[in-house]
Amino acid sequence: MKQYPEWIQEFDGNLWLTENDRDNLKISYRLKEVVFSEQSPIQHVMIVDSHDFGRMLILDGVVQTTALDGHIYNEMITHVPISLHPNPKKVLIIGGGDCGAAREAAKYEELEQIDMVEIDELVVQACKEHLQEVSGNLSDPRVNFLFTDGLKFVAGKENEYDVIIVDSSDPVGPAEQLFSYDFYANIQKALKEDGIMVCQSQSPLFHQDVLGQTQRHIADLFRHSATYKAVVPTYPGGLWSFTIGSKVHPITPENVEVRPLNTKYFNQDILTSCFSLPEFMK
Amino acid sequence: MKQYPEWIQEFDGNLWLTENDRDNLKISYRLKEVVFSEQSPIQHVMIVDSHDFGRMLILDGVVQTTALDGHIYNEMITHVPISLHPNPKKVLIIGGGDCGAAREAAKYEELEQIDMVEIDELVVQACKEHLQEVSGNLSDPRVNFLFTDGLKFVAGKENEYDVIIVDSSDPVGPAEQLFSYDFYANIQKALKEDGIMVCQSQSPLFHQDVLGQTQRHIADLFRHSATYKAVVPTYPGGLWSFTIGSKVHPITPENVEVRPLNTKYFNQDILTSCFSLPEFMK
Repeated sequence: MKQYPEWIQEFDGNLWLTENDRDNLKISYRLKEVVFSEQSPIQHVMIVDSHDFGRMLILDGVVQTTALDGHIYNEMITHVPISLHPNPKKVLIIGGGDCGAAREAAKYEELEQIDMVEIDELVVQACKEHLQEVSGNLSDPRVNFLFTDGLKFVAGKENEYDVIIVDSSDPVGPAEQLFSYDFYANIQKALKEDGIMVCQSQSPLFHQDVLGQTQRHIADLFRHSATYKAVVPTYPGGLWSFTIGSKVHPITPENVEVRPLNTKYFNQDILTSCFSLPEFMK
Repeated sequence: MKQYPEWIQEFDGNLWLTENDRDNLKISYRLKEVVFSEQSPIQHVMIVDSHDFGRMLILDGVVQTTALDGHIYNEMITHVPISLHPNPKKVLIIGGGDCGAAREAAKYEELEQIDMVEIDELVVQACKEHLQEVSGNLSDPRVNFLFTDGLKFVAGKENEYDVIIVDSSDPVGPAEQLFSYDFYANIQKALKEDGIMVCQSQSPLFHQDVLGQTQRHIADLFRHSATYKAVVPTYPGGLWSFTIGSKVHPITPENVEVRPLNTKYFNQDILTSCFSLPEFMK
């Protein structure tokens, strides 16, 4: 066997990936092969091909997205805010190195510019080449890749974007500041005066503290705010939350007419029903 | 260490349960302790206390329900069909050994009788004694426990129940016939002329064949049928499906007024939104 990081192990003649980020729960995936494995200046980047989920992006030993279900997360973080904006032209995506959010945003012909700020260029390279089920091998000329720190990038912006999508990883290590009040305040400034933002706000089952704090920050900074849910099978807890903030436009999904966008999860029914929350989330 | 089945292992001074039912995915839970462990004539029955999910019911090495999220499944399989029936008096639950469905049904004061047919008495005993987060230590006199084969029980019934809930385990081994056309035809006969039935129809991501077959059977046997979804964090894929069949009453959740039922997941919004399905399920 080639020399792989410790989260890849051989067992009974099979390769297995075991996620190493949780103390009390270990999930192991049987692999067909390791497709890509390299250390970037930021993190360890790996693409593997698994039996149950197809190809998967692994950062520092933790599954980020898979060919089987990556579209659910990416469609929900992208289509909900963009379809709620009546006239979106310029979109900023912070994070989203798998390129799935940019791919979904590019389905809107009225968009003129999609800036994608990702700190780790190697993630984008790996996903464009080896995870096209998620990235779609994005070659739309409206998409500008900017390989820099999203936190610093947004701090200098004012009145520039119609929609900002914060597609961060979990709030540990470098991504922790992407959940801070100051960051959301900078997002608020970077938006045009009728802008809309969205961020992933973690699992309502396992990270109620993060969800609650995010809701308070966004309710404080925006006239309108709301949390919506989606199923993300490969994230712990299955149920995932997103929180939206809007400066002017009310969050009224029932007034939006969803166009055919060649989606696999998102549709008119999902847009109106995703804001219906379980009793324990209210 | 005491002698436990092979799915319990000691590792670095901790007890771990590793589910053994899937070839390509292994999930291991760190345990505080094994609370109950016995072989019944049907299967191996175990209650463990885990760090992340609290107490869990394990049958033949596979997690069935947990203190953390068992209420989601049980509320959804129970409250949707009962609240869609305008005048329910007599309910039959097939399976549901964790007693969670019976517990939820007992919240309806207008019910006169709740028959619960479970093949394995040891499951009910274990859950009543050691898994009260799910079972609620059910002592409602309207609940009749019948420890017999649900398949045979229902075959002899005609025009008897207002609502039948099929709370089966996965369609392998003894539960396989609980997904057959003949079984649903017997359910149809056992219902009163305006009866409503529901069954769990597996994961729309991993068991599309079972879901499709169940939908066809029920659409063939009932004037009205529909599939609804819920998040079940500890089942593979997170997203779970239920399929409902109604002889007479249309399935119009928007016309139902949900009463306060002391639920943690189910509410008015969930009832109307659970029938909104993702694009790939249509």
